[in-house]
Amino acid sequence: MREEFTRHEKLSSKELSAIDVEVGKHYKPNDFGDRVAQRFIKMLRTLPDTYFGRDHYMRAVMLETIAAVPGMVGGMLRHMKSLRNMSEDHGWIIHLLHEAENERMHLMTWMKCLQPSLANRLLVLGAQGVFFNAYFWLYVFSPRIAHRMCGYLEEEAVISYTHFLDDLDAGLISNGPAPPIAIDYYNLQPGASVRDTVLAIRADEALHRDANHHFADRIAAHRENLLADVQAKAYSEEQSRRVAKSPHYTQTSLH
Amino acid sequence: MREEFTRHEKLSSKELSAIDVEVGKHYKPNDFGDRVAQRFIKMLRTLPDTYFGRDHYMRAVMLETIAAVPGMVGGMLRHMKSLRNMSEDHGWIIHLLHEAENERMHLMTWMKCLQPSLANRLLVLGAQGVFFNAYFWLYVFSPRIAHRMCGYLEEEAVISYTHFLDDLDAGLISNGPAPPIAIDYYNLQPGASVRDTVLAIRADEALHRDANHHFADRIAAHRENLLADVQAKAYSEEQSRRVAKSPHYTQTSLH
Ligand SMILES: [Fe+2]
Ligand SMILES: [Fe+2]
Ligand SMILES: [Fe+2]
Ligand SMILES: [Fe+2]
Repeated sequence: MREEFTRHEKLSSKELSAIDVEVGKHYKPNDFGDRVAQRFIKMLRTLPDTYFGRDHYMRAVMLETIAAVPGMVGGMLRHMKSLRNMSEDHGWIIHLLHEAENERMHLMTWMKCLQPSLANRLLVLGAQGVFFNAYFWLYVFSPRIAHRMCGYLEEEAVISYTHFLDDLDAGLISNGPAPPIAIDYYNLQPGASVRDTVLAIRADEALHRDANHHFADRIAAHRENLLADVQAKAYSEEQSRRVAKSPHYTQTSLH
Repeated sequence: MREEFTRHEKLSSKELSAIDVEVGKHYKPNDFGDRVAQRFIKMLRTLPDTYFGRDHYMRAVMLETIAAVPGMVGGMLRHMKSLRNMSEDHGWIIHLLHEAENERMHLMTWMKCLQPSLANRLLVLGAQGVFFNAYFWLYVFSPRIAHRMCGYLEEEAVISYTHFLDDLDAGLISNGPAPPIAIDYYNLQPGASVRDTVLAIRADEALHRDANHHFADRIAAHRENLLADVQAKAYSEEQSRRVAKSPHYTQTSLH
């Protein structure tokens, strides 16, 4: 979840609109793996495009039942790897599991707004069966391509939620009150609307987009220790603090 | 993790010893499923008993590579179920994932104390392959028996760590300093020992034992909503607060 939603003050519609999610931001595929990932997501997108059209609530539900899978699969596989190699995970597991829970909260939110038909429920069931297995083996085979694929999935999520906003603003969908679960989760004002909810969720998706492309980049660059930067930063801050506090400060004590 | 470890004050050896973990507490099997669960764990136990004997560090490592599996499998399956049924999970996922992470931290702690041989590493690899799949299908088939099995596994964990303590106290193992990761995680005093670490971890295992037997009981009793009690309590407290604050308090406003 974005840092904006964890502050003490409740976010207004204006503040939600002001979050820059960089709509249309796109990672240019660099190699064959990237292109496969992008092609797969473009293909996956045709399903809601042809089947749900402008039924944005159902689109969102379908999207979130899929989007909540990768974080759980990645987190689980890295947990099992940490156990069997008896080695540290360097910050991945907790991040990926939080992403999965965040996506599941998106789903829980939209479920307050509609009752999917039996046909749509069966569709979700089938999609999960295929996607879970496909993503599981992709992550085993190449975590890099898997995260790249998530990056592309989240690019589409940002676009889909932007269309949702467009249709709300065009008056094609009525802008009712936000579900209480969203007001609670995102720390929105009591009178928040569906539009505010879409803005908040879209902001999460933009964060997932950037995070997953970043993860793919780090794996490609063999810089998989996510905590290294944090630790290096904490170390250098600690050193400055010590130096500042120390009455015996000499230049060499820095080394 | 137990509530004791999250306080501001650092726990002393004396306070750690004072935690009542109810060594030897045992859930009497109630039916066929319970007996199968208990039998399986008794069988599993023969492996460390014959192979590792009193090598308590290696026993602990083997135990934790196994014990960190169920929470992840259960959390993952309930997450996927929540997605495909598009329904709330009522508090299970987060609890189970925390349990898995807690067990993984136990493993990371013991890994600071030894270098497993290649043979032992291969053993862990094989054990994970078998146990992950077995537990996965058991949880699909019967979450109740799965949690009961965990309850029994944790009973054995409490017993194993008690033997570890006995051998430390008998001087068979030297009581060195606690690994810094354990001091940090459990909020122990700077001079904490391996013995303190064993006490802290054993306290976690006792909590897992009680939690998993409780989960099995709730599933058996068809009271799967873990949040219901919390919500009922919060609701009744809220009601009392309202009544206490209201200047228009009448008996009937309670209803
Ligand atoms: Fe989402
Ligand atoms: Fe997302
Ligand atoms: Fe453990
Ligand atoms: Fe445990």
